[in-house]
Amino acid sequence: MSQYKHVALVGLGLLASSISLAMRRADMTAKITGTARSKETRETALALGLVDEVFSTAAEAVQGADLVILCVPVGAMAAIAEEIAPHLAEGCTVSDVGSVKQAVAEALGPHMPDGVHLIPAHPMAGTEKSGPEAGFASLFDNRWLLITPLPDSSHSAVERLEVFWTQLGSNVELMEIEHHDLVASVISHTPHLIAYTMVGVADGMNRVAKTEVVNYSAAGFRDFTRIAASDPTMWRDVFLNNKDATLEVLGRFTEELLALQRAIRLGDGDFMFDYFTRTRDIRRSIIDAGQDTEAADFGRGKPE
Amino acid sequence: MSQYKHVALVGLGLLASSISLAMRRADMTAKITGTARSKETRETALALGLVDEVFSTAAEAVQGADLVILCVPVGAMAAIAEEIAPHLAEGCTVSDVGSVKQAVAEALGPHMPDGVHLIPAHPMAGTEKSGPEAGFASLFDNRWLLITPLPDSSHSAVERLEVFWTQLGSNVELMEIEHHDLVASVISHTPHLIAYTMVGVADGMNRVAKTEVVNYSAAGFRDFTRIAASDPTMWRDVFLNNKDATLEVLGRFTEELLALQRAIRLGDGDFMFDYFTRTRDIRRSIIDAGQDTEAADFGRGKPE
Repeated sequence: MSQYKHVALVGLGLLASSISLAMRRADMTAKITGTARSKETRETALALGLVDEVFSTAAEAVQGADLVILCVPVGAMAAIAEEIAPHLAEGCTVSDVGSVKQAVAEALGPHMPDGVHLIPAHPMAGTEKSGPEAGFASLFDNRWLLITPLPDSSHSAVERLEVFWTQLGSNVELMEIEHHDLVASVISHTPHLIAYTMVGVADGMNRVAKTEVVNYSAAGFRDFTRIAASDPTMWRDVFLNNKDATLEVLGRFTEELLALQRAIRLGDGDFMFDYFTRTRDIRRSIIDAGQDTEAADFGRGKPE
Repeated sequence: MSQYKHVALVGLGLLASSISLAMRRADMTAKITGTARSKETRETALALGLVDEVFSTAAEAVQGADLVILCVPVGAMAAIAEEIAPHLAEGCTVSDVGSVKQAVAEALGPHMPDGVHLIPAHPMAGTEKSGPEAGFASLFDNRWLLITPLPDSSHSAVERLEVFWTQLGSNVELMEIEHHDLVASVISHTPHLIAYTMVGVADGMNRVAKTEVVNYSAAGFRDFTRIAASDPTMWRDVFLNNKDATLEVLGRFTEELLALQRAIRLGDGDFMFDYFTRTRDIRRSIIDAGQDTEAADFGRGKPE
């Protein structure tokens, strides 16, 4: 059974399509409407059965919905909030899947009519793929969904959203909004920025040919390129909208990197050995927590 | 058929065990002897059938071999060269699988007796796992093996080693030794250092709990922890022995990172968007070159 009778998905990419597929898998009987900016995406989503009805505007898509989930880049949210505001049903919940939460709350809040529940949320799940064909029903299984309620969020509306996401497969946790943005910066935003940077460095080295970079990229660099293949618009918006936390974590990163660089320059093997040993522990914990497998990653699929 | 009658593997970890398994897969009839520092590793290697005979010293293991492959951390090579030198057969080839080549050539060269062919080599393949049980026969398939011949290397001895690695599944390329160390720094050494650093930062953030880092690590950080779970001794030795190239690439990295950091601070979305778009191309090229699959990485094995 479904917490909501009618779910409207604004934006029909990886996350929206995975939400739809996970809803169907959970036998939710809710009607699903959707919208996307590009005609091609709308037609694909309809053809894949991700939505019961598709509309060319968000204003139409949200009409009558008791849950609206904004699945668009963070930078696009304010304009959409303004567009949908007059069309939102009394008592409906407006949520999102954006990677930053303070900026989303600030972008959406001012537009929300009385009687509408604004509850920002962030699924800690994804792949480097984009578009409606990239989704799959198990994306959220055993992944965490962070809800960052606002001071005046209704307790029962938050609880309803929690149950919804649990049915999609997620573990749900409530988190203070500012803390969310710091945590997300440490485990997702800054790693992405660093992967982009490393790939940019390799691309820009005159003394190393591009064919060398491409052919000899085994484990290590290959994973950086996968991360750095993520959607540029989405990530631009993340950094524009999580500036303070990202700059804080980058400051720490530079400090640590310079300490390791100094150890390399001075030949301080003990410093490096201790550092590299400590980081192994975190890996162990992530596997124990079921957030990754023990299997070695080989690229190109599993060995034998 | 085999280029060599007797291959001695010094060190019995991931690479040595994969060499042995790939040799068996190619129906090479060569005798394989091996040695490792730890008794447990030696016994495991013997039990797994990776070696025909195992010895507690490298001096014994190399006796009568026409190919000796040093599969130990770079920092251990000089001492082993000194130990095995008096026991090497006339005309045998001594090679290795170390990640840096200039330092290996300098560590081994002075100890090599006349009539022995020293030919450093580096397979661009691996996983984050260590030990004799981590190997698999297809590790080298379609991966590149870089040979860095010395100025006086015998052409026919190099050619023989090329054929051997081709039979193990590798594509083989000859490369100038100093250039190798720069290329390896760009596509492997520096990315590893950066992954270690990012995981170290996450570990050291007082305001973010370790459980948060562990539970919410989806794509992005999760891959960094995998890379940062690699063998600490091996990587300490890499950085101690490829100092100049690593410092050069780190200099470039810091420069690029500061440019992106500045764009974040100034809110320069166009700079970021262009940067993130450029890095997508490299990914495309790596997939086209068969060095990774198109499949999204999800951690925890493939979706559905």
